[in-house]
Amino acid sequence: MREDDEVSVAGGATREDRRRDPSRVLALTDGVFAIIITLLVLDIYVPELSRHETLQSAISDVRPSFVSFVIAFIVAAMQWTGHRDLFTLIRYTDRGIIWLNLLTLFAVCLLPFGSALLSRYSEDPLALRLFGLILMATSVTRTAIWAYATQRPSLVHEPLDRASIRSGLALSVFPLLVYIAAFAIAAVSPQASLTVYASAPVLYFITITLLRWLAPRGSAEREFT
Amino acid sequence: MREDDEVSVAGGATREDRRRDPSRVLALTDGVFAIIITLLVLDIYVPELSRHETLQSAISDVRPSFVSFVIAFIVAAMQWTGHRDLFTLIRYTDRGIIWLNLLTLFAVCLLPFGSALLSRYSEDPLALRLFGLILMATSVTRTAIWAYATQRPSLVHEPLDRASIRSGLALSVFPLLVYIAAFAIAAVSPQASLTVYASAPVLYFITITLLRWLAPRGSAEREFT
Amino acid sequence: MREDDEVSVAGGATREDRRRDPSRVLALTDGVFAIIITLLVLDIYVPELSRHETLQSAISDVRPSFVSFVIAFIVAAMQWTGHRDLFTLIRYTDRGIIWLNLLTLFAVCLLPFGSALLSRYSEDPLALRLFGLILMATSVTRTAIWAYATQRPSLVHEPLDRASIRSGLALSVFPLLVYIAAFAIAAVSPQASLTVYASAPVLYFITITLLRWLAPRGSAEREFT
Amino acid sequence: MREDDEVSVAGGATREDRRRDPSRVLALTDGVFAIIITLLVLDIYVPELSRHETLQSAISDVRPSFVSFVIAFIVAAMQWTGHRDLFTLIRYTDRGIIWLNLLTLFAVCLLPFGSALLSRYSEDPLALRLFGLILMATSVTRTAIWAYATQRPSLVHEPLDRASIRSGLALSVFPLLVYIAAFAIAAVSPQASLTVYASAPVLYFITITLLRWLAPRGSAEREFT
Repeated sequence: MREDDEVSVAGGATREDRRRDPSRVLALTDGVFAIIITLLVLDIYVPELSRHETLQSAISDVRPSFVSFVIAFIVAAMQWTGHRDLFTLIRYTDRGIIWLNLLTLFAVCLLPFGSALLSRYSEDPLALRLFGLILMATSVTRTAIWAYATQRPSLVHEPLDRASIRSGLALSVFPLLVYIAAFAIAAVSPQASLTVYASAPVLYFITITLLRWLAPRGSAEREFT
Repeated sequence: MREDDEVSVAGGATREDRRRDPSRVLALTDGVFAIIITLLVLDIYVPELSRHETLQSAISDVRPSFVSFVIAFIVAAMQWTGHRDLFTLIRYTDRGIIWLNLLTLFAVCLLPFGSALLSRYSEDPLALRLFGLILMATSVTRTAIWAYATQRPSLVHEPLDRASIRSGLALSVFPLLVYIAAFAIAAVSPQASLTVYASAPVLYFITITLLRWLAPRGSAEREFT
Repeated sequence: MREDDEVSVAGGATREDRRRDPSRVLALTDGVFAIIITLLVLDIYVPELSRHETLQSAISDVRPSFVSFVIAFIVAAMQWTGHRDLFTLIRYTDRGIIWLNLLTLFAVCLLPFGSALLSRYSEDPLALRLFGLILMATSVTRTAIWAYATQRPSLVHEPLDRASIRSGLALSVFPLLVYIAAFAIAAVSPQASLTVYASAPVLYFITITLLRWLAPRGSAEREFT
Repeated sequence: MREDDEVSVAGGATREDRRRDPSRVLALTDGVFAIIITLLVLDIYVPELSRHETLQSAISDVRPSFVSFVIAFIVAAMQWTGHRDLFTLIRYTDRGIIWLNLLTLFAVCLLPFGSALLSRYSEDPLALRLFGLILMATSVTRTAIWAYATQRPSLVHEPLDRASIRSGLALSVFPLLVYIAAFAIAAVSPQASLTVYASAPVLYFITITLLRWLAPRGSAEREFT
């Protein structure tokens, strides 16, 4: 909003420019992410002690909640940094980007439910699969925005070269593959599935660091957070 | 706030300009929408298993919560994109716009309650009607801001032509009519009423797409999200 | 933040300017208000039906929650518009304003508790008094920021004349007196006390409208929302 | 986002500048702090009266919740003003700052759990220690960002002199020492431990006021809030 005003004071923003300004999309998105990572902690309950029980023994029941809080926090943080990286490239929004972004927020909003489910039934294949489906939804929507925006030169600051587009896609698709793997083995070995979910961020950080190292100076991959 | 400072550094924002700046109205609104769409997920409870029950059977109880989450999420998203579209036209706020906007937020704030009520008693005519009343309130307040702002040339960037004003009104009033229909048939057929609520967004998207197609190039309707 | 960067690109923001920029204070404040007015709705519970009970009869239990939601929403909205009005005058923050503002947020944060208490025990003098204390705290802190800022010419855009300062003080102090009255009669007549709380916003709107009418053109009172 | 656009309209923001812009980091951070200080109040429950009990007697059970709400609110407010002070110095973010900031938010997000635990078991050494660990995490992450940013001249507006860097470190490390002391004595004297936690803010204010007084005019310490 403010940008429009300033520019139009300076003498130029058309209605078209104002409509395509991404600032409120970012405000909504940052708000949702801020709430999601904060709501996740609500699943860590303060234990009620039964008779003769000490807090020492009861607090260990909180451990699974804490583990799934950590996993979900890192997933949300990854999604947010990925979103920020993407929108440093995007100059204008259009109807497609706005609704794809709302779809991303839809998936992100389900994270606290998935996290709570996982913390309560961390051994149950169904809980692990539902958690996986939510994670997949976040990755698919992120991939969709990346593909949509990078193929529309009118929406980005500078057109990306094909190698950067591919790297960005790889970075969105890669967690998806990991989540599919964890989903697939949930019935066979719940413990292994949980471990894969927990290690996805580690793999993600390694991938991003590799992409940054391998990329030529000045390319978009250098800017992945 | 920042805008004022900048402009007044450059040498010109009067107290009048600062008072009419819509930036904080948008910040509050985006905050409320971000929280609403995130709170909606809190109605999707993690089921507690009774003895001999499996998560598989218990999770089906979560389905109504999920359906009403989806409906309420889409309603909130529609309201937000509509709000964003409207405020790309509005340059200045006044006392009327601020309080009409707070009324809109009041209606939007009731969405999580309506959604929770609907997910718990999706067959009950009263629950369907209360949900309908909340949806009607969001539409009525949205229509009121549209009518108020578009009739005050001093508040908008460029005055809208009469056709655009009518299209915008139609777009605000149209969901209202659908909600009234769903409200009216709640007692006769709860199932049909729920279906109408669920299909309102689909009808809305079709309407908006038609408005965009039919509108002449450069008119405000082209910019509806 | 952004402002600093821009100005320093243009070539001038000192560290002093950056430190005194109110933008993050406003971002935090708008966030807190957005959350408060949204959290208030959480006190409107979806009723659980006991055997042979209909939703029709059970929903009437929700009425007190709804009434206190409406009261608390209006109180929060009044605080927010008052805060916005005040900060259209303030150009710079200092340590005093930041901590007075945090004190205001502290009082505002207690509103959901006060509202929940009131909706549960609307006939109880103690509940009415605690609700009154929270409202008084919001008024006192608001009065304190107004007095602090308007007496420091280096913090405001333009120095206010004495009449405007007094009007602003009156507007902050006036609700305080109403709340004190409601507090005082809580033990004698809980019903009357609740009525006074509920009618405070009406009186506030009348006062503000009078102040706007009576004020000379161009004075700060004209800008009260 | 907006800044980039403006500057690039003016003709200069490179992709590098956009990537390093701290505005969304601040938006997320302010959002999280706004939510945290608001969620803290959710631990102040409205008491349910048992038969023959009055609200008068029941409300005293709310006192520990209120005390831990006050402590946690002040801790969060201190963290936020500290964060704001730090980011008035920081001009650009990089991958390190973004993830260190997310770590800070991780620690801050645990505050409501710590506060709830403390309000429920304020005499229990384990609860006091866990609360202490969360507070230490907020201090350690804050110290880490301070050390990271002030040692990278390319990230700050103006390089700080060694004395200012040391003062800032002292201000971050000082609460850490107090929390370690409270942690250490939790088993010996829970009451003393709680008192130390409660008095930490007082000591912090005294320290900051001393630093401001002792610092030469124009140095960064003068700007601590």
